[in-house]
Amino acid sequence: MPELRKDPITGRWVIIATDRPRRPGDFSREHVVAKGIGVCPFCAGNERLTPPEVLAYRHSGRPNEPGWTLRVVPNKFPALRIEGELKREGEGIYDKMNGVGAHEVIIETPEHRISLGELSEKAVEDLFWAARDRIVDLKKDKRLRYVILFKNHGEAAGASLEHTHSQSIALPVVPKRVQEEIDGARRYYEFRERCIYCDKLRQESATASRVVIETDQVIVLCPFAPRFPFETWIVPRQHLSHFEETTVAIMQRFAWAVRTTIRKLEKVLENPPYNFVIHTAPLQEPEMAHYHWHLEIIPKLTRVAGFEWGTGFYINPTPPEEAAQFLRDAGI
Amino acid sequence: MPELRKDPITGRWVIIATDRPRRPGDFSREHVVAKGIGVCPFCAGNERLTPPEVLAYRHSGRPNEPGWTLRVVPNKFPALRIEGELKREGEGIYDKMNGVGAHEVIIETPEHRISLGELSEKAVEDLFWAARDRIVDLKKDKRLRYVILFKNHGEAAGASLEHTHSQSIALPVVPKRVQEEIDGARRYYEFRERCIYCDKLRQESATASRVVIETDQVIVLCPFAPRFPFETWIVPRQHLSHFEETTVAIMQRFAWAVRTTIRKLEKVLENPPYNFVIHTAPLQEPEMAHYHWHLEIIPKLTRVAGFEWGTGFYINPTPPEEAAQFLRDAGI
Repeated sequence: MPELRKDPITGRWVIIATDRPRRPGDFSREHVVAKGIGVCPFCAGNERLTPPEVLAYRHSGRPNEPGWTLRVVPNKFPALRIEGELKREGEGIYDKMNGVGAHEVIIETPEHRISLGELSEKAVEDLFWAARDRIVDLKKDKRLRYVILFKNHGEAAGASLEHTHSQSIALPVVPKRVQEEIDGARRYYEFRERCIYCDKLRQESATASRVVIETDQVIVLCPFAPRFPFETWIVPRQHLSHFEETTVAIMQRFAWAVRTTIRKLEKVLENPPYNFVIHTAPLQEPEMAHYHWHLEIIPKLTRVAGFEWGTGFYINPTPPEEAAQFLRDAGI
Repeated sequence: MPELRKDPITGRWVIIATDRPRRPGDFSREHVVAKGIGVCPFCAGNERLTPPEVLAYRHSGRPNEPGWTLRVVPNKFPALRIEGELKREGEGIYDKMNGVGAHEVIIETPEHRISLGELSEKAVEDLFWAARDRIVDLKKDKRLRYVILFKNHGEAAGASLEHTHSQSIALPVVPKRVQEEIDGARRYYEFRERCIYCDKLRQESATASRVVIETDQVIVLCPFAPRFPFETWIVPRQHLSHFEETTVAIMQRFAWAVRTTIRKLEKVLENPPYNFVIHTAPLQEPEMAHYHWHLEIIPKLTRVAGFEWGTGFYINPTPPEEAAQFLRDAGI
């Protein structure tokens, strides 16, 4: 019998197929492989092919020259632009505003690598420090209310260039899904006076069946009501609502967990396309007792169709308990 | 400058690229074409390859034999099953229930056709009557709270069989996105004492720039804040919250509008994959002054990536005003 499960934070129901669960080999999907490319604008030596950098970690060289290990540049085709005053306007029953914001690319390595899993622990950690540095900087601009950090890996997951990179978009509004999460967590907090993510970590740690990795600082788990097969969350144990406030010790362990999890997913699912997204509190809000930053990874294994678009209701053919088992067993 | 637009019902923001809008030819995508297939279980004569029918419109023959023009059968691999008592259960902080529901397929024609646009007006109308008949029947089961009717057209939009068909899923819960729509519409109604969809139709009709087709009974429009390029809504003018209460005159005109719109989309976008979904009020609720049933069509032209999954925030490269213009100009 299939099972309906409810995500306690957002209230989203998912259908988990428990009869004939789909195993890793059952997904016919695109595997991410390096293609022959012409000139890669993200490789060292090609700095002139991107807009000038806004941040770089480098051991030598001048800005926009080789010598860097990580580089942040504005997106050449930005979804939003930083210039101009924020103007809100009505149009009858509708609301609109001009597209003030920022859209940046974090190039994680000067070498042409296609996966974060191939990078050193230090390079993965640097990605998250760079994200933090950019958030701290963008936060000064009071027009901006949210920065989303995400990665599209592989063409099927929306990546248009194969050289490994992440992206950040700074927005003048708090996105709806983020607000829903925060509101859901707040309702739980008002009722119980505890953070729902902290409660979740306690319960998951005790149950163990959905835990992939557990350390003193970080827990990697497949959530109880996942939308997608092999959806995996990486959650710091310490309660903290804002990603950019993370301490060095936790950031190191978090980066290690992200790298390890990606390597596990790549082993079990044979280099699947995937997306990851940092879920964090809005920029201009103070620390929240009810919200808890974390990272969500979604391998792109199934197609989202009319049912999901129409309802926000997901059918997941792989129970998270089985996904967690496969990931635990993949020795990395 | 890109523009941020807010959907007045759900509160969802989208980024509309107004600088260099994407035109129909700019989308590199999969076109839906008929493939050589072996035996199609939806063709007349192959009735034994599906579970026994739950409804058929037929001019001759006995159940599960040829002679039908439309046939409804249970899905062979259902997401939910009708048997069993509905049991709700907790698991620590989590909630779950068993997967009671129904999952059916509406086969729209006995002939192997791949698109609804190729069918007669009568056949398209029959699809919606069959959907209505099934809703009326399923509604008697008080465990069921919502029926979603949708179509996945083309492999990229999630269709696994090419013979044109739609699907319905009856659920023991009201899906989150449906509830959000209803709640958003209720808030507007409380404030203004008017249905937001009725207001929308008035404003769109006056503005005209986003209208594709306008008749006495139905308006076809590209919404102000669409998530996807060429997203198109078909809305009856008459206020009615429940699809299954639609009168004959409106159903006829609605079916005509759906068929015409699909033919326009297929002409302009060269047979794109698409999804459509009927948005209607929950089964067990009385008529609602604040909710208004309608159909939403989403051509599958772009990939949804990390940004969208993380935020519920969409980047749409084609302004709805331009999409509507292309669709208006496509003479069908």
